[in-house]
Amino acid sequence: MAQLFATDILHGRILISCPDQPGIVAKVSKILYELGANITESAQHTTNPIDGTFFMRIAFDMARKKDALQKLETAITPVANEFSMKFQLTMAEQRKKMAIFVSKEEHCLLELLWQHQTGAIASDIAMVVSNHPDHGDIVRSMGYPFYHIPVDKQNKQIAEQQQLELIQGQVDFIVLARYMQILSPYLVDAFENRIINIHHSFLPAFVGARPYERAYERGVKIIGATAHYVTAELDAGPIIEQDVQRIHHGYSVQDMKAMGRLIERTVLARAVAFHVDDRILIHENKTIVFS
Amino acid sequence: MAQLFATDILHGRILISCPDQPGIVAKVSKILYELGANITESAQHTTNPIDGTFFMRIAFDMARKKDALQKLETAITPVANEFSMKFQLTMAEQRKKMAIFVSKEEHCLLELLWQHQTGAIASDIAMVVSNHPDHGDIVRSMGYPFYHIPVDKQNKQIAEQQQLELIQGQVDFIVLARYMQILSPYLVDAFENRIINIHHSFLPAFVGARPYERAYERGVKIIGATAHYVTAELDAGPIIEQDVQRIHHGYSVQDMKAMGRLIERTVLARAVAFHVDDRILIHENKTIVFS
Amino acid sequence: MAQLFATDILHGRILISCPDQPGIVAKVSKILYELGANITESAQHTTNPIDGTFFMRIAFDMARKKDALQKLETAITPVANEFSMKFQLTMAEQRKKMAIFVSKEEHCLLELLWQHQTGAIASDIAMVVSNHPDHGDIVRSMGYPFYHIPVDKQNKQIAEQQQLELIQGQVDFIVLARYMQILSPYLVDAFENRIINIHHSFLPAFVGARPYERAYERGVKIIGATAHYVTAELDAGPIIEQDVQRIHHGYSVQDMKAMGRLIERTVLARAVAFHVDDRILIHENKTIVFS
Amino acid sequence: MAQLFATDILHGRILISCPDQPGIVAKVSKILYELGANITESAQHTTNPIDGTFFMRIAFDMARKKDALQKLETAITPVANEFSMKFQLTMAEQRKKMAIFVSKEEHCLLELLWQHQTGAIASDIAMVVSNHPDHGDIVRSMGYPFYHIPVDKQNKQIAEQQQLELIQGQVDFIVLARYMQILSPYLVDAFENRIINIHHSFLPAFVGARPYERAYERGVKIIGATAHYVTAELDAGPIIEQDVQRIHHGYSVQDMKAMGRLIERTVLARAVAFHVDDRILIHENKTIVFS
Repeated sequence: MAQLFATDILHGRILISCPDQPGIVAKVSKILYELGANITESAQHTTNPIDGTFFMRIAFDMARKKDALQKLETAITPVANEFSMKFQLTMAEQRKKMAIFVSKEEHCLLELLWQHQTGAIASDIAMVVSNHPDHGDIVRSMGYPFYHIPVDKQNKQIAEQQQLELIQGQVDFIVLARYMQILSPYLVDAFENRIINIHHSFLPAFVGARPYERAYERGVKIIGATAHYVTAELDAGPIIEQDVQRIHHGYSVQDMKAMGRLIERTVLARAVAFHVDDRILIHENKTIVFS
Repeated sequence: MAQLFATDILHGRILISCPDQPGIVAKVSKILYELGANITESAQHTTNPIDGTFFMRIAFDMARKKDALQKLETAITPVANEFSMKFQLTMAEQRKKMAIFVSKEEHCLLELLWQHQTGAIASDIAMVVSNHPDHGDIVRSMGYPFYHIPVDKQNKQIAEQQQLELIQGQVDFIVLARYMQILSPYLVDAFENRIINIHHSFLPAFVGARPYERAYERGVKIIGATAHYVTAELDAGPIIEQDVQRIHHGYSVQDMKAMGRLIERTVLARAVAFHVDDRILIHENKTIVFS
Repeated sequence: MAQLFATDILHGRILISCPDQPGIVAKVSKILYELGANITESAQHTTNPIDGTFFMRIAFDMARKKDALQKLETAITPVANEFSMKFQLTMAEQRKKMAIFVSKEEHCLLELLWQHQTGAIASDIAMVVSNHPDHGDIVRSMGYPFYHIPVDKQNKQIAEQQQLELIQGQVDFIVLARYMQILSPYLVDAFENRIINIHHSFLPAFVGARPYERAYERGVKIIGATAHYVTAELDAGPIIEQDVQRIHHGYSVQDMKAMGRLIERTVLARAVAFHVDDRILIHENKTIVFS
Repeated sequence: MAQLFATDILHGRILISCPDQPGIVAKVSKILYELGANITESAQHTTNPIDGTFFMRIAFDMARKKDALQKLETAITPVANEFSMKFQLTMAEQRKKMAIFVSKEEHCLLELLWQHQTGAIASDIAMVVSNHPDHGDIVRSMGYPFYHIPVDKQNKQIAEQQQLELIQGQVDFIVLARYMQILSPYLVDAFENRIINIHHSFLPAFVGARPYERAYERGVKIIGATAHYVTAELDAGPIIEQDVQRIHHGYSVQDMKAMGRLIERTVLARAVAFHVDDRILIHENKTIVFS
């Protein structure tokens, strides 16, 4: 997992998906070997060895040389074509740029900022965008840009246009850290598989609004939270991470919300770190997470 | 919790529910004191101190004397009337009689029989009833009566009549230990709040059939099981106990079922023990479990 | 659990311990009833109904009247004498005053400050004391007094004298939020059962220094953290709360520390909330926590 | 994970450890590819890419042909020599033969037998050996050989000689399923890294005898169990698997033991399945478990 970085070493990752067939690992690892890369982490998954889809994540170290990554990409491309492979090649030092969208509740926002400062989330935070001004002071005092874009029924389209202008070209992915507005389809489309939301229930239980109230009414003994990619269908995108905590009959809705905040922030931060570290592949409506 | 029983000591329990108001605990505990009972465990819950409902469970020891429990009941009755109280007075040694209904999967059945033999489930097991003959040998070899009553679409009404004749007057409650037939309303009515089912999902997620298959399709990262009382509406009765386990993308449906069996048997056995030890009160569609 | 407070209602709590014998609950609840208190939460524990020790926590609401609590105390005192009872009577609104001691790692400090601001920790924070200046700015910017008292081998006695002068009469209890100095016996004595420490292991495993390094060397599959009261013997005081997380062979010491920080902060905050809400009784070297 | 087996397909596994250096994966996967094997699962771990030790597990499918595995072994041997590699090549269908040693407590024994019958533990059970006659009937009725070899201070050496004669050449590994005798060094040596014990505590807490009693005295809030390989030093061998459950002040030693039994059996069965499925590598005193 986490490693200290030496300046003369490149830390690369390659994510692969393709129809499963013999020889994929052999070909890819041979290329890495021939270009002097040392595999430090490797994981693979197949939906079915016969006619299934194959997924692989390889993390590797290689000496920092001019055009090292380009050479690797050039070498892999014919193999990718041969195996009908989709692949993604990244370097740890090319940090992804994140935008955090937040409304009034601050616990997920603060967790992301704190974990960013400890280094656990190894991305850049390009900006924090909120439909409320409340968190501007704390965000700015921690050194991050903050933009207040009010959203209401009248101005929703204009507001989203403003958001898009802010983030377009500036951010690689968006984290909805308890952002209580539903995004328009064109924003979801523009950031396909690159918007992470935290839902305050153990999905698919309690899809939609007011999950803690409904969990209370149903009398569940365990509550949870779910981080998932955002798709056109509300709360139905690929699940990245979930966690739960035990409750009992003595928990009021307020108690459940307080407990829930602790789950939500941890689950969201973990999902964001998986995304930032290129540990997630999406297949149909599910994730493969090489954690 | 568990105690060794001395033969000259009665171990009693009283379950109470009534509109909340000051003085309930004072009155009840004074009666117990005056009749020589020593409170060994006590728990209470109120939905709201103003106009809410109050619930209490008291476990007590008292010297074994002729008519001790009747005297206690006689003493409590006027207080119960004064506070519009429902109460239930039981002795640990008056063991409840359980019927286990089971189909082909044996893991929950075996767990109940094993925990019964270790003493963790302190009821009697009056009989095991199955729509398949498969488990007859093992059940009988462990010393329990086994009845095979085949159920199919044609004979369902007759079969349930046979079941009812078997259990009527012989059992206090029914445990559906992976019994894959839906009970008829008249059986559910006859044993209101006295039929415990294990559902192989983390309810309310995946209500209905094939929950593991659907959990697999949805790509959840945690699976669970739920023990609940059976009501007219399928899988919607008061939840008694739930538990979960973490899974990942490498789990096939078969793997999830194997993991699920381990969760199901433990959750069901825990719920049954709560019921047997009179630790559960039902309020609206929820349980208060004094565990 | 948590409740909204009405201004004309007093929210009181009484903690009791005494030799177990029949009649304790009856007497105490009768007094509460006669003074107009409504019991909202009640829990009890006995080490043994015969010759054991009895513990009880009662939370109650009563109308805010002049001298209400004094009257209650006066009424209970003769019962306390009769039963050789120790009791403690508090009101939720008389908030305890906490001092936080911290060294370089900030995660537990920030968690306490954040949970204090959300209301989950219902005490006052009188001051933050550190042997390093690092956290002064953030603490002061959040509105709390910060004192930097350097500690080294030469000045340790003087430094502790300064600490004692700061806190004497100003604070009710001390939280060691990753404070990496061992307290002198006279400070421990002065705050007996009122200093809470977070130890970064699942005690009693890895007592002492460098627990994550040692957990790594031992190859454990689960790591944890333990909040406990501080006693003269290092890491051996009564345990208040513990929690754990699963790890695997891929975790470096750094990874374990990162995961550990998330456990530590939650466990410590939970333990502090239990203390603040008067949910803890100490018996011999163990806690009874009515959570 | 689990797979259905086709009769014309071989399911193989290769476990590798060697000094880490570039090219290992490339070489091994090329050989598998050239011999027509399809990699279905692959995991690797390195203690350090520079000068560390490298570990890999590959599961693969290949057409069932005469001498297929021998050919693979022959092809890998020169690579193994080149990389100073230790490797182990097995087939799922060559089931390991297990001996279960047990004393009076039956919960771990029954769990192993049950999981064996469900197929979750894919080994053979060659025999059950006990120093007490108690479980003979149930073991034999389930179709397994049972040997009663009494052990006491006088006959310990003779008894162990009898055990060794029974198992020598008949079993591949031994599971101590709550076997309450300490094995002699020569038995431990003869089955190095092939004896699995379940210890009824969360090691390294409560090494040695009476762990639940000591956990009770220490007032821990979580109890656990640990499956580990047996080495010369008591309770200090490589940890395979651990799990825990939350308890509270109301748990007596008896309650803790009852709860503990549920943890022990699951942890042990999981560890045994890992061993049977060749998912464990040992490095120094730690395990790498590719689960």
